Order: sequence, then structure tokens, then C-alpha cells
Amino acid sequence: MELWFTEKQTDNFGITARIKRTLHTEQTEFQKLDMVETEEFGNMLILDGMVMTTQKDEFVYHEMVAHVPLFTHPNPENVLVVGGGDGGVIREVLKHPSVKKATLVEIDGKVIEYSKKYLPEIAGQLDDPRVEVKVDDGFMHIAQSENKYDVIMVDSTEPVGPAVNLFTKGFYAGIAKALKEDGIFVAQTDNPWFKADLIRTVQRDVREIFPITRLYIANIPTYPSGMWTFTLGSKKYDPLEVSDDRFHDIETKYYTKQLHKACFVLPKFVEDLVK
Amino acid sequence: MELWFTEKQTDNFGITARIKRTLHTEQTEFQKLDMVETEEFGNMLILDGMVMTTQKDEFVYHEMVAHVPLFTHPNPENVLVVGGGDGGVIREVLKHPSVKKATLVEIDGKVIEYSKKYLPEIAGQLDDPRVEVKVDDGFMHIAQSENKYDVIMVDSTEPVGPAVNLFTKGFYAGIAKALKEDGIFVAQTDNPWFKADLIRTVQRDVREIFPITRLYIANIPTYPSGMWTFTLGSKKYDPLEVSDDRFHDIETKYYTKQLHKACFVLPKFVEDLVK
Repeated sequence: MELWFTEKQTDNFGITARIKRTLHTEQTEFQKLDMVETEEFGNMLILDGMVMTTQKDEFVYHEMVAHVPLFTHPNPENVLVVGGGDGGVIREVLKHPSVKKATLVEIDGKVIEYSKKYLPEIAGQLDDPRVEVKVDDGFMHIAQSENKYDVIMVDSTEPVGPAVNLFTKGFYAGIAKALKEDGIFVAQTDNPWFKADLIRTVQRDVREIFPITRLYIANIPTYPSGMWTFTLGSKKYDPLEVSDDRFHDIETKYYTKQLHKACFVLPKFVEDLVK
Repeated sequence: MELWFTEKQTDNFGITARIKRTLHTEQTEFQKLDMVETEEFGNMLILDGMVMTTQKDEFVYHEMVAHVPLFTHPNPENVLVVGGGDGGVIREVLKHPSVKKATLVEIDGKVIEYSKKYLPEIAGQLDDPRVEVKVDDGFMHIAQSENKYDVIMVDSTEPVGPAVNLFTKGFYAGIAKALKEDGIFVAQTDNPWFKADLIRTVQRDVREIFPITRLYIANIPTYPSGMWTFTLGSKKYDPLEVSDDRFHDIETKYYTKQLHKACFVLPKFVEDLVK
């Protein structure tokens, strides 16, 4: 018997992956959680039927969320990750020696629990002494924070289900308040092939709040279209003006200091979206 | 009834697209040719079960094959496209006013015939007076050409079936002979996630023949992993050293003059492949 998991990324298009076995399946308080072992991508975390991360390609997303803002900020000490219960962004954040504290606010404790169990090389740093893990609502945490963080990263699911509030202008205003006066935030903002309207809306909203607003891209094979976007809002520092001496050596598989700037060079049809 | 076309891009991973209807299906002299109408990507050309091009995302591949070498060469007049029977690369080539003649050598006349019929906005320029279409073996055409072309583009299928000779060192040596003394060639060379060995081999082979060898990337949603690579070999001109005044305005949806250089900035794991 062959088992295949198919994610319909749109009503009319999807990816399909051969499954060795199902490791865990559960309806949590917030979403459907599946962990499967795939032939091609290793263990795969699926939330509400959508691929969140896989052992083979997780490095792209996690590196690109973390290192672009962290190398843009001259001295990131206090970092917040909203969502990201698999721990991958936290792992990358901890590669920066300036970071004194990294807080993870994940609404669904089950994501943390099963990531630790089945994605240990992703979630393994969640027990680091610099990390504080809170199982809580990221929207509320942001609303209650003021002038606190140097960098905030929003590693959310799609804007359906538990993450729907994380794509609102009110949330971005809250993030601005939660950041220090020279703070930076970044959020994953889906793909330009199937979700052009979302990118356009987020750009417009973030631009009304942050003086420096930029979109950058990365290739993630298990995400719709293979091209993923990240929206960065910054109060003071421009990622395109980072001087070369800012970069220190870290071990990466995707991010490089050349890519730090090249990832902001957009294909024409994406550039047109954010004009 | 729902009809879905699934391409297994590897033994264990694939894409799946909902089909409105099958427009044509035929075993040609060289390969299985299917033309289907999809919900998500418009009409789609499939050869031997592999997606070749679709109306929605074809512009990426065709622009990136054509414009990178054509803007690198200061005066491309005589251009050869090997394969590319859908006509998309030719359409882009003709946007360059310096081009006096564009020759298409496609082994399978049926690809041309059904592209003209079902992909008219891609194949429509094949009747332009500057274009010569030859239904012939590209390998043989190259072997019989000497000091003739300014730019050669290899728009082939995968290195199985009729295109297997187009990924050999002998073919690249033939291309070097067929090019003028300052000629440039580019070939599609698959993706780094599933075909790392192929990219490594092609780079090694091309480097032994061309003094300037470079790899660049583009995002194509219907191709495996969404990240596609192109290998460029050049006798004299470096695509990274094109001066800004070289670029003239052309209408594109993906290529920009900023992307002309940024597309050569590779993710770390791809950079490592071509070291």
C-alpha cells in the first residue's frame, strides 16, 4: 500500500508527498495537528492540513525569518517570537551572541510538545537558559507589551484559524508599541502567486505604521508556489543599508550576507504588488 | 467528477493540478505529449508526464532564459534556441532590437504544432520574419555549426528521453565551437533540492570549456521545488559586470535589471554545490 498526503494549497493546486507512517494525529484546542514521516522531506508537521515545516527544508524559513532582522539591528538583546512553536526560529535567534533573552509565545502547547518529540533538531534549543517559552495568545501578549523588544518575529500559520488576528492592522500597531524606539519586526506573509491580495494589504497596513517597510523572498519547496514572502517593518534601521562589518560568522544553509540584500530584489510582478 | 493531473517530480513527491479538460494527447515520434486545461495555471503542456510550461507561470522561465544572456552580450544579432518548441524563449528574444535572426531547432514538430494551437500567446511569435524554425536534432545542429552564434539557449526537457545528449560535455564543447569568439550560452539545469548531482556535474563540465561559468536561479511554481537553475557559460562577457547603460526598456513580468545580478546570489547550499 502507498500512502500519500496531499495538501490542496489552493482549491485547484497542491503538493503530494509519500508517507512512511503517521507519527501522531490529534485535534488540539486550536487546530488539527498531524505529524507524519515522509520519504522525501523527513518528518513533517501539518496544522489544519497545511505543511508547517519539514526536517529537510525547514532551514530556509527559520534562517530567513531570524537573520534578516537580527543582522539589521545593531544590537538585538531582547527578542520575541510569536507562534513558531516548532522552535526553529528560536534556534536561529540563539546563534546571535548579542541576544540575552528570547521569548516564545505559542498559543498551542501541543505544537511545542510534538515538535520536541518528533523534530528534535528543530525544537531542541527551546530548553536553552536564554529562552522563555509561554503557552499563550500572541495577540494578547503583544497588546500587553510596551517598549520592550528589539526584534519581534511573527511565525504564524496562515490567516485562517488561530492566526487570523495576526494579519490585522491592530496587531501591527501593537507590535510597534511593543518594540523599542529602534525596533524591527518581521512576519511571514505567504506567496505572491496565490495570495497577492494578502501581500498588498499587509504592505499597506505596515507602511502606515513603520517608516521602513520592505518585502523579501525565499524559496521553500513545501510551501505554495515555492516562493515565500516576509514583510519587515522597522522604526530606524534599513536592512538594505547594513554595513558589511555588521555580519558575523554564523552557520547557515540558506542565508548569506550577500543574500541579506539580494533577497529584497523582487521579480517584477512582486515588485508591482508592493508599489 | 474531479480530474486531477499529478506529476511525481521525484519518486516520493509531486504536484497535483485540477483539470478542466484534456485538449490533446498523443505519442509523438519522440515523447508523450499532453495538453490540458487546468483551473489554476491555464493551459499546460506536459511531455513524458512532466510539466513543461503553463499559461500562468511561463513568463518566468522564458524571460530568465532569454534576457540574462541577451543583456550580458553587448550586441546579440544571431541567436539559437535549442529545444523550446513552445516558442516562449523566441518571443522574449525578439524583444531585443539588436537581434537580426533567431533560429529555433526543435526535435519534435508536434510540440510546435500544438503550442501554436493551444498556447498562442507563447508560440505566436514563431512566424515572425526574423525567426527560422527547424524541426531537427539540436545536438546535430550544434555539431554542424561553427563560429556562428552570439548567444545559444538550451531550452530542453529533463536529461531523460530525447534531451539526454543535451547534458553531456561533448554537447557543451560543440556549443563553444558553434558560438563566436565572444559568445554566451545558457541552459536550464533543473533544481538544487532533488537534482544536486546534475547541477554539480554540469558546472564542472561547463567550467572546463568556458572561462566564465555562472549559475542563476528563478522561482517557477510548477517546476520541482519551485527553484530552478540556469547554467551560463561565456567566453568573454561576465553577466555580473554588465554596466547599467546596457539595459534598455523591455516589457517583462519577472526579469528586471536589478534581478539580472541578484539572481546570481545563491542560497548557501546552492553556492556550495557549484564551488
